[in-house]
Amino acid sequence: MSDQPPSRALQMRSLVTDSQTVEVSLEEVEVPDPEPHQVLIRVEAAPINPSDLGYLFAGADLTRASASGTPDRPFLIAPLADGAARAAAGRVGQSMPVGSEGAGTVVAAGDSDAARALLGKVVGVAGGAMYSQYRTADATGCLQLPEGSRPAEGAASFVNPMTALGMVETMRMEGHTALAHTAAASNLGQMLNRVCIQEQIPLVNIVRSPAQASLLRDAGATHVCDSSTDGFMEDLVEAFRATSATVAFDAIGGGSMASRILAAMEAAISSGAEFSRYGSAVHKQVYVYGGLDRGPTELARSYGMAWGVGGWLLTSFLQRAGPEKMATMQRRVAEGITTTFASHFDVSVSLAQALQLDAVGVYSRQATGKKYLIDPSA
Amino acid sequence: MSDQPPSRALQMRSLVTDSQTVEVSLEEVEVPDPEPHQVLIRVEAAPINPSDLGYLFAGADLTRASASGTPDRPFLIAPLADGAARAAAGRVGQSMPVGSEGAGTVVAAGDSDAARALLGKVVGVAGGAMYSQYRTADATGCLQLPEGSRPAEGAASFVNPMTALGMVETMRMEGHTALAHTAAASNLGQMLNRVCIQEQIPLVNIVRSPAQASLLRDAGATHVCDSSTDGFMEDLVEAFRATSATVAFDAIGGGSMASRILAAMEAAISSGAEFSRYGSAVHKQVYVYGGLDRGPTELARSYGMAWGVGGWLLTSFLQRAGPEKMATMQRRVAEGITTTFASHFDVSVSLAQALQLDAVGVYSRQATGKKYLIDPSA
Repeated sequence: MSDQPPSRALQMRSLVTDSQTVEVSLEEVEVPDPEPHQVLIRVEAAPINPSDLGYLFAGADLTRASASGTPDRPFLIAPLADGAARAAAGRVGQSMPVGSEGAGTVVAAGDSDAARALLGKVVGVAGGAMYSQYRTADATGCLQLPEGSRPAEGAASFVNPMTALGMVETMRMEGHTALAHTAAASNLGQMLNRVCIQEQIPLVNIVRSPAQASLLRDAGATHVCDSSTDGFMEDLVEAFRATSATVAFDAIGGGSMASRILAAMEAAISSGAEFSRYGSAVHKQVYVYGGLDRGPTELARSYGMAWGVGGWLLTSFLQRAGPEKMATMQRRVAEGITTTFASHFDVSVSLAQALQLDAVGVYSRQATGKKYLIDPSA
Repeated sequence: MSDQPPSRALQMRSLVTDSQTVEVSLEEVEVPDPEPHQVLIRVEAAPINPSDLGYLFAGADLTRASASGTPDRPFLIAPLADGAARAAAGRVGQSMPVGSEGAGTVVAAGDSDAARALLGKVVGVAGGAMYSQYRTADATGCLQLPEGSRPAEGAASFVNPMTALGMVETMRMEGHTALAHTAAASNLGQMLNRVCIQEQIPLVNIVRSPAQASLLRDAGATHVCDSSTDGFMEDLVEAFRATSATVAFDAIGGGSMASRILAAMEAAISSGAEFSRYGSAVHKQVYVYGGLDRGPTELARSYGMAWGVGGWLLTSFLQRAGPEKMATMQRRVAEGITTTFASHFDVSVSLAQALQLDAVGVYSRQATGKKYLIDPSA
């Protein structure tokens, strides 16, 4: 493969139409020359994160998706239910590039020293439009991977690592000393488990199967509660009693998990305490950061008055934390990108393969644990 | 009526038993002599607030209540469902006095100047055990009513007035500039409406009937949205657009109201704004301070990621606000107790009448708007 970039290359695009459909396709776009402070990256690995899925398909009903086009230039179309259409109203008619993060090889560089220093290196980068064969990026925004690393190792260098560190920082900023996490066997959950072990932060890992529980225990987790077992609530209360965790990060969103977490926290806090008609005065917080279950969140409100449930978004957290804290976090990710912050991927596909209906059917079911990587250079 | 207090007098008591019932009765208790800094109050008016109801009946199923005893000393017993029994587990076997606030005449005083100055005056007081014929209180905690006031006018001098002011303070402390309120035609809602008109704070009043809407409009409210009408959501979006309210206080709790408020706030914020896949960055908050609907809170999460729902409790707010702020708020209530902070009551009953099944059947249905006052001296 020549390192001489072409003048035009493919980019995945998502378009919500005014006839309540989403169209996903590969478009030929110009490959720009890098500005002095920029590098041009040949993208070789970009993960399909849950947040990317939401953007790519706009909440469409994928069971009713249909594919057309050619093997090299597939075209996928799927209908949006009314709720999804309302939520996507603001993007109707705008063809949008997709892919929040990825990694690849720097094949051209601008004239600045910072840019030229990266020529030929493998770098991770975030900021959108990563499901593209080529992408320019600011040299200062690139995370240089350790010598000999494969692009797949740096593909997920931003969203999951910064989210894991952001959860720990949020816990500290809001005065908690331990935390809980749902979908704890995910790539993100495994990362968070490693961070918490390193920093000796008590972590309650909530998973949905015995296999996931084993995976985390084998990785050194102390508190693992499996919601598929009969004793789940008792285990959860015991884990909260042992850790004093009063904040949880929930990837599920829908259903009763947030409410059960609050109830178990309150039970752990109030056991043996004097009766109060309004429950304990200890604030219990659940942050919903994902939507594995898109149904409504149901709160039983059986845990007194000192509770909160709210959305948690990485970009909002980073604004709140400020640039200095963010830079510290990124340095830490860079040091641990192949260890603490390593991700596991099951399948790597090309841009065209990513739009095959059978592939979509697998990676769009987030809860199965099949994690896909797109290699636009393949 | 002689002002010479008796040595023993009646007090309402609530007892949760280990056979999953609540027993409410009138007990004869000693009337204490006031300490130097205290006064002895003959209680003549004490409201039945929603929070008192929760304490009095411990969430019992009142449709299965039965009464016995004599007309003067009634005895009421009602079964607790499993959930209510779990919530009340901490108070099993403890006979507890009830009544968060009230007013009456000072009939004896301790030797301090502050106490003696109140002799013969009508005062409002808070702090529990107000469903008693006599009650001692710290002189400094008493709110002296304007000359010529009836006790009923000072009966609700704490919970509702401080809650209304607390909502406005919370709004300010958290950086909002306008607010919304559900069950806005309640005594509390009418108070909040008057406070907001005085301070020129935009307020969105959410009510459940055309009659309630008229009541508030007649009281000068600008933004009134009636959830019983077809155009409710459109009206709500328009009211949020007009006021920029991003915090709401919800007395209902159960059902979809909190979620609809968040959705309408987000629609008002994002109309005309650029599309963002995570919704607007403006934080939208609903505080649940009551439970008119005891069912689960259902959150559709269709309003981006910058949202929060949580409990709001007056006592927690006052701790957060601090003693200085609290004293300022109390002075303000004292000045406006017969105007801004006036309450309306439909019925006044004696302690014994308050335990008749037909009376319980009316005042325990909070949403009907029949507001009861207990006069223990009757």
